Amino acid sequence: MTPNVFFTGGPEDWARYETPLRDALAAEGIAARVSPDCPDPAAVDYLVFLPGTVSDFTPFTRARAVLSLWAGVETITGNPTLTQPLARMVDDSLTEGMVEYVTGHVLRHHLGIDGFIGATRWEKAVPPLARDRRVTVLGLGELGSACATALAALRFDVAGWSRRPRRIAGITCLSGQEGLQQALERAEILVLLLPRTPETEDILNPQSIAALPPGAVVINPGRGALIDEAALLAALDDGHLGHATLDTFRTEPLPADHPFWQHPRVTVTPHIAAETRPETASRVIAANIRRAEAGAPLLYRVDRAAGY
Amino acid sequence: MTPNVFFTGGPEDWARYETPLRDALAAEGIAARVSPDCPDPAAVDYLVFLPGTVSDFTPFTRARAVLSLWAGVETITGNPTLTQPLARMVDDSLTEGMVEYVTGHVLRHHLGIDGFIGATRWEKAVPPLARDRRVTVLGLGELGSACATALAALRFDVAGWSRRPRRIAGITCLSGQEGLQQALERAEILVLLLPRTPETEDILNPQSIAALPPGAVVINPGRGALIDEAALLAALDDGHLGHATLDTFRTEPLPADHPFWQHPRVTVTPHIAAETRPETASRVIAANIRRAEAGAPLLYRVDRAAGY
Ligand SMILES: NC(=O)c1ccc[n+]([C@@H]2O[C@H](COP(=O)([O-])OP(=O)(O)OC[C@H]3O[C@@H](n4cnc5c(N)ncnc54)[C@H](OP(=O)(O)O)[C@@H]3O)[C@@H](O)[C@H]2O)c1
Ligand SMILES: NC(=O)c1ccc[n+]([C@@H]2O[C@H](COP(=O)([O-])OP(=O)(O)OC[C@H]3O[C@@H](n4cnc5c(N)ncnc54)[C@H](OP(=O)(O)O)[C@@H]3O)[C@@H](O)[C@H]2O)c1
Repeated sequence: MTPNVFFTGGPEDWARYETPLRDALAAEGIAARVSPDCPDPAAVDYLVFLPGTVSDFTPFTRARAVLSLWAGVETITGNPTLTQPLARMVDDSLTEGMVEYVTGHVLRHHLGIDGFIGATRWEKAVPPLARDRRVTVLGLGELGSACATALAALRFDVAGWSRRPRRIAGITCLSGQEGLQQALERAEILVLLLPRTPETEDILNPQSIAALPPGAVVINPGRGALIDEAALLAALDDGHLGHATLDTFRTEPLPADHPFWQHPRVTVTPHIAAETRPETASRVIAANIRRAEAGAPLLYRVDRAAGY
Repeated sequence: MTPNVFFTGGPEDWARYETPLRDALAAEGIAARVSPDCPDPAAVDYLVFLPGTVSDFTPFTRARAVLSLWAGVETITGNPTLTQPLARMVDDSLTEGMVEYVTGHVLRHHLGIDGFIGATRWEKAVPPLARDRRVTVLGLGELGSACATALAALRFDVAGWSRRPRRIAGITCLSGQEGLQQALERAEILVLLLPRTPETEDILNPQSIAALPPGAVVINPGRGALIDEAALLAALDDGHLGHATLDTFRTEPLPADHPFWQHPRVTVTPHIAAETRPETASRVIAANIRRAEAGAPLLYRVDRAAGY
């Protein structure tokens, strides 16, 4: 049987994905019908899913999987109509993009680069070496562990924190509530790479921010909801925090009148840390469809109870 | 015999070096007399040298080595009074500092970070992945090869250029005049880590700058004299070059009225890329004195004919 693949995105997304998706399926030897139109939900075998599209999964009675093009699946994990298996995006090019973003911004803050851009005076200020700089990464999944490892390769003193205990070469791995406290207390630079779940929401709040050392820098390419914005702004204003570089926000695009835009200690990047790239993401999707067709378990299956 | 070690720097440098140098010599088991004063040059066994201090080496008739605290030795290689063996500084912490500086600024330009600092609008511009970004490093010595390797570990597409042919895993190694042309033509980001010698002076000149691809970025933590400044400014002004991030200059500190200070496409850093750190540099010096005392050849010996 030729499977029916429904691409849930709009015309713009379809224009970027049509060729890569068809090519990737062909390369896996799958003769599928792929379309952004869905006259009959009951005939769909796989949904290639983008957030903000389908919200009621009930009519997709035959669907064997919902395959997310995004790594973050918080918009869908709580959806009670979703009974089909859900897989999220894990892709080398996504990971590489995130490693570049995180390494670039960690080095930027570590080296104090902003202070030199546009400087008009010779003022020698030598930064410490990376080996004397403590960086903490909250979240040690696909992205967090890759970032922590890249930073450790540059000899940063790196700790990471996850839900379950982990072991990663060269990284001080912490977990649980006590681990969080330790992770925060040492974080001269804090990188947030947690998914958004009920447990992680507002994980950066007045109390946890107070645990950070004075002058700490926060980098958030995870999710906007990880941060209590009022608490962050207060700590930037009173000088407890040195800077915040943020890629993700509760509302995106970040509204024009949001205080982050004008704040001298905030850098806003427009959710570009790790972009899903059609060529590579399509290969991940096609490989997962091939597995499902062969009766093998899906890769990157989301644990609905854990929420990620 | 207890060797006499003459520290050529002034009181400020001595204040930073006295303890580390004494400790490092003690750790090597060398009972030396170390002093920043030199009542009798003919009694000196080793000079620990800082640029801009001793210029006539003739009176140091007994000296067995001149040990530079700096990696760059261009101020002394052409000195005809220097007949004693000369060693330059090679030190892990110097290399680490340079790797951090180069990686940080390469990522800064690769990711277009400057465009986000102080931005007030959500404008999605996704950079390519490092694997699709070509970086060239001129100079593949201690520092250049370490930087090239760190960039390749982040998956940048890296080429390097040296005087003699080299082989470094993961790096396209080029040499000679033809190699230089190839190295330049591909350089979206060009890093200068050559020593200053008669051969390398003005290596970035109107002709070589023209060989760079449009929009190329130049990062120069090597030496100011590697660049023809007028040619660089002209290429920045006419838009052929995208940016120059410079750490070294023909005159340091860079004079207050120098056009680099006000140029929107130039970033000046005050010769901080890789700072000699007293603790680690003193250990390198002490180890070399131990070798010389034992009759072993000096490490990091400068090739006076090649000029570095
Ligand atoms: N800005 C962007 O462009 C961009 C792009 C892609 C993704 N993202 C964000 O990055 C997030 C992480 O992606 P990923 O692929 O690395 O996810 P992942 O592989 O699922 O890893 C998530 C990590 O967070 C940890 N975690 C989850 N809940 C936790 C809790 N309550 N307490 C402590 N640790 C917890 C997990 O712990 P365990 O190891 O114990 O499971 C795991 O280490 C995504 O969810 C998304 O929000 C952003
Ligand atoms: N900004 C700072 O804070 C800072 C700090 C330390 C050093 N530096 C600068 O960095 C420079 C490099 O240091 P290093 O320790 O890496 O030096 P190095 O080990 O001596 O390496 C020099 C490299 O340049 C190459 N080279 C020299 N002359 C050449 C020519 N005519 N054509 C092509 N290649 C040539 C050499 O080629 P071969 O491999 O064939 O010998 C070698 O690869 C120093 O000289 C200094 O100017 C700057």
